[in-house]
Amino acid sequence: MPNIFLKLEYNGAGFHGYQIQPGLRTIESELRLALQMVLREPVHKLYAAGRTDAGVHALGQVVNFWSAQLPDFDKLTSGVSHILRGELSVVECKVVADDFHARKNAKRKQYSYTILNRPGPPVLNRGRVLHRTGRFEIERMQAEALKLVGRHDFLSFRDADCNSKTSVREIYESELISKPPYLIYRVVGNGFLKQMVRIIVGTLLAIGRNRLEPNDIRQILELKDRNKAGPTAPAHGLCLDWVEY
Amino acid sequence: MPNIFLKLEYNGAGFHGYQIQPGLRTIESELRLALQMVLREPVHKLYAAGRTDAGVHALGQVVNFWSAQLPDFDKLTSGVSHILRGELSVVECKVVADDFHARKNAKRKQYSYTILNRPGPPVLNRGRVLHRTGRFEIERMQAEALKLVGRHDFLSFRDADCNSKTSVREIYESELISKPPYLIYRVVGNGFLKQMVRIIVGTLLAIGRNRLEPNDIRQILELKDRNKAGPTAPAHGLCLDWVEY
Repeated sequence: MPNIFLKLEYNGAGFHGYQIQPGLRTIESELRLALQMVLREPVHKLYAAGRTDAGVHALGQVVNFWSAQLPDFDKLTSGVSHILRGELSVVECKVVADDFHARKNAKRKQYSYTILNRPGPPVLNRGRVLHRTGRFEIERMQAEALKLVGRHDFLSFRDADCNSKTSVREIYESELISKPPYLIYRVVGNGFLKQMVRIIVGTLLAIGRNRLEPNDIRQILELKDRNKAGPTAPAHGLCLDWVEY
Repeated sequence: MPNIFLKLEYNGAGFHGYQIQPGLRTIESELRLALQMVLREPVHKLYAAGRTDAGVHALGQVVNFWSAQLPDFDKLTSGVSHILRGELSVVECKVVADDFHARKNAKRKQYSYTILNRPGPPVLNRGRVLHRTGRFEIERMQAEALKLVGRHDFLSFRDADCNSKTSVREIYESELISKPPYLIYRVVGNGFLKQMVRIIVGTLLAIGRNRLEPNDIRQILELKDRNKAGPTAPAHGLCLDWVEY
């Protein structure tokens, strides 16, 4: 049985997140159905690099699964992309080694979160960016964003529902890019806790408005208390950009 | 009466182009109605930097009009953007000198045309990019794109319907950028004929597939014959990026 690697782009708006949940439309359930229709065989389990939350987008999510026989890659790409057209597209498709596992083998992942900071709402990027008017202390936010680089316990930056055994993660890159009218938070790490990036962004936005106490990321990390960080930023500004193996 | 300058972002999909046409929904007609609702005064005439075709998008279209009194800019921005939400947004709004005219004073304009070149269709940029699978001779296309820089008679690159007095235009920058999986054609000029950018893109795409004879942009310009250029590329890949005064 060949182990099939898929790279996916999707719009999170129409899905209740990646992971299968009874009675809800999720990426995993819809992709599984589409694969079964195209391959005309049962697909039992999909392994994904990261379980994106409801509403979160992806440009380069990676999934692997075992197929009964070698699929026709052109047919798989066009078939799945047609069934889920406008919502999910297969960007890459290939056979990988038997021991490849999309989540366990992931070395680094990049997420980005985009904020449109101007009076007029988004048009061409509608549904993909968070709209915020008014002034932010951008330099302050940039300095705080950099402090997340390194190995830290992210207990203050995880959702109450998160059931990861450890809340220690390593962040390789963390920066807030100012490209008026956009503010883009970009983060590269070995893994992320539930809602971690959205809580980081919510914290940076609160710091940028002078609305958080303490307003020092290092202190917030040390306090290991979710209540010390800012609110969770909305899902639709977030995108899983790529996964590295 | 103050002369009001507006910078606009819009999605061309729901409009029959910029210019007012009886019985059709156009940017000009909808914007005029929205301005009248927000300002509670008749708005007689809007002057636009460029009349974008049906389906063409804008990130930085510029329009000016005369208002009876100085408007509240915050109200104008949020009011118009709310009435046309998701389709048009006011990016900038200010008073300009009495002699300012959005079209006549425009010195340079940039358009860009985006092609997604991969097997899977677009998702997050759906409706904004042209999807083309298969291989293009990108270096050849890039060399031809550069040949458009300069002052030329663009008779071969204008729609039969175009009623400009002269077909001579000056192009300051013309390049095809390869940013896999995207190909982006970017052009800066003092003005453009009807469908000129879309015919240029159609010509470059035909050259990239080895499907055009002659396949030299200089020769096509010299022949001054629309039939020698390639087909008109679809509107939805095109965007008016900015106008310089």
